[in-house]
Amino acid sequence: MSTASLIVIGSELTRGIIQDRHGLLVSRELTHIGVHVNEIVAIPDDGSISHVLSALKKNNSIVIVTGGLGPTGDDMTRNAIAESYGVPLVMDEGCMAFLKDRLGERASGANLKQAYIPRGFSVMPNPNGTAPGFYGTDGRTLILALPGPPREMEPMFFNHALPVIRKALELPEGERDEYSSFITAEARLEELMEKCGPGLDWGTRFQDYKISVYVSGADRNARNEAVSRLQTEVGPFRLVPGCLDALDMLVERLKGKNLSLSVAESCSGGLASERLTSRPGASTYFLGGVVSYAPSVKIDVLNVARAVVEEHGVVSAQCARAMADGVRSACASDVSFSITGVAGPDVSEGKPVGTVYLGFSSAFRQTESVMLDFSSWGRDSIRRKAVVAAFILTACYIDGLDPKEIVKEWRNI
Amino acid sequence: MSTASLIVIGSELTRGIIQDRHGLLVSRELTHIGVHVNEIVAIPDDGSISHVLSALKKNNSIVIVTGGLGPTGDDMTRNAIAESYGVPLVMDEGCMAFLKDRLGERASGANLKQAYIPRGFSVMPNPNGTAPGFYGTDGRTLILALPGPPREMEPMFFNHALPVIRKALELPEGERDEYSSFITAEARLEELMEKCGPGLDWGTRFQDYKISVYVSGADRNARNEAVSRLQTEVGPFRLVPGCLDALDMLVERLKGKNLSLSVAESCSGGLASERLTSRPGASTYFLGGVVSYAPSVKIDVLNVARAVVEEHGVVSAQCARAMADGVRSACASDVSFSITGVAGPDVSEGKPVGTVYLGFSSAFRQTESVMLDFSSWGRDSIRRKAVVAAFILTACYIDGLDPKEIVKEWRNI
Repeated sequence: MSTASLIVIGSELTRGIIQDRHGLLVSRELTHIGVHVNEIVAIPDDGSISHVLSALKKNNSIVIVTGGLGPTGDDMTRNAIAESYGVPLVMDEGCMAFLKDRLGERASGANLKQAYIPRGFSVMPNPNGTAPGFYGTDGRTLILALPGPPREMEPMFFNHALPVIRKALELPEGERDEYSSFITAEARLEELMEKCGPGLDWGTRFQDYKISVYVSGADRNARNEAVSRLQTEVGPFRLVPGCLDALDMLVERLKGKNLSLSVAESCSGGLASERLTSRPGASTYFLGGVVSYAPSVKIDVLNVARAVVEEHGVVSAQCARAMADGVRSACASDVSFSITGVAGPDVSEGKPVGTVYLGFSSAFRQTESVMLDFSSWGRDSIRRKAVVAAFILTACYIDGLDPKEIVKEWRNI
Repeated sequence: MSTASLIVIGSELTRGIIQDRHGLLVSRELTHIGVHVNEIVAIPDDGSISHVLSALKKNNSIVIVTGGLGPTGDDMTRNAIAESYGVPLVMDEGCMAFLKDRLGERASGANLKQAYIPRGFSVMPNPNGTAPGFYGTDGRTLILALPGPPREMEPMFFNHALPVIRKALELPEGERDEYSSFITAEARLEELMEKCGPGLDWGTRFQDYKISVYVSGADRNARNEAVSRLQTEVGPFRLVPGCLDALDMLVERLKGKNLSLSVAESCSGGLASERLTSRPGASTYFLGGVVSYAPSVKIDVLNVARAVVEEHGVVSAQCARAMADGVRSACASDVSFSITGVAGPDVSEGKPVGTVYLGFSSAFRQTESVMLDFSSWGRDSIRRKAVVAAFILTACYIDGLDPKEIVKEWRNI
């Protein structure tokens, strides 16, 4: 695998005055074409580039330098690179003509030093500034120098640097499959990945409501088989292809079948509604919800029978179903779901922290409920996981599947 | 002059998935106390820390490492540091007790490795996560290891790492006052700080629902006067002493006066309820809420008169008041507030994006409403700022103040 490092030069970076943007851009684009980024190093424009460059040249097939190409005394990039590659700086006729044209009367002295590049190197033109970029190789490490200001650097990177890198390394298309995973702990997922696909390159990226799973290495068949094993370990709809939120699964059904939704929440406290309305255009499928935190609100607003609360408690399958029916009726929606459980930290009604019931109601099929055990999680996670599970299982419920059967196969929660 | 370098660990950084924030923060604060930052190095969590650390130890009196302290296999910071300093990892009793308490049943195996620190090192507690930080020295280079997630790293850096560094450098205790600021843009706040207290050292830390403001330099009187000027610039209750959320202001009143609350939300879509129930014990003051996203739910569930919706629209003072009255009646709470507005991206009822009305209702005083203009913000910010404003103004409403008079004095939103 090709490896690269990036040196970002600027005392305004190491003194905390401005935020570097090049690191994110360059590492994202290089990763995308299959290059492994070893280091992103920010240093002041005090000459440190010399020793940083010589260290990085040893371990990288590509080194990219941004900044330090200007006309002032602390812009030492061109000298450092020329020295490191053992060549003198030579004047580039094209750059000199460009500079004289651009600078006019200021084309003299220090300014003209920007027309000099290391001998044998090639120029990357800079239509947005005075300092051209350049690149070259000693047969071992390709080095590319670009100006620091983002409006000069970014176009040059995309239009010149990236094509040069692709060509120089004759990179094969780096195949990497992406999946989205729900309601599994990252640490547990990593154990399972190792078990299901030893020898493959697995990666995860934790986000609040899902974990992205990346897999590369071997051939497509081997990767697919490993992912199948992983899917069996967690159960249906918990590891799906692509970059997808659980919310996407539900919204796709609602839009596709032109269904309206309402939700009744207890332990999740409004989080499901908040997520549903977090996207523009939510009003086309979301009518509203009731956060029935107190038992009295379940009875008074959602019309849950007092007997249900008294006999089964508010954390029960019966209450979940009555909440789902109640909110669907109150909001006159086609479909609804409910969430009631114990988010903790204290137990409730003698039920342990992490016990969550979900209810599903619609005009076109019988009301259903499931019980989930999130007892290995803390309060925030229980709330988030309950909402994600509700999104997934409501999508299944709309599809005519049995939420209870699906949850039966869920493991490694 | 003391020199420092920072190692930021995370494959999500070198793969261009997320933007590093620690480099800016740490280099700014170190520069501020006279430390020269040599390098900020981002590396993947693949074990590269070992050779990067040994290189940086040679040329720096301080090395700070963030990330790689978690329980998974690619979290190798504690091992690399112990090895580099030639000491074993030993279990810290305090950390172990904290971990067991925090993790509950998950306190086993890999998770417990977080309680081990290099022998002779000291712990920096982490109230916001599971991995403690630690620091130590070999008499030549002081090294400090902090967790990667910003919400864990930033408080630990300010409260522990920076004081440890100041002490090591024999700098006097720096007096620093902390305030919490609401509903002002960070960039605008920085302009105002410079205007109100030139010559003082100001700092900000952006969080989703507030911005922390830090001020140091000069004497206490000069700082207080500058803060007073800043408070005048933003208006009442928008810049308050200490580390405080807007939600704290409201919860304090509810608990202090033993009042129950309900909320009616439209454009905020459940966010107010979600925030209110995000803390354990919310059921002592929060009864529930209605997310009346569709006009029909405002009418059917909140009992808003159809005439109000038809004559004034759902984004109106009249509708906000009717929603607040309606939810208070439906949930039988002592106090209620409502949020209705245009979060965008599209205008609604001809009202521009950012127009938000809040309503306040209670058994003990007349129902009130205010209009707020968040038109310079985007969808997510409008929702968050509307919720923060509702928390602050409901607290004021409970105190007998007039929300309209307060909003009149709000500037620089």
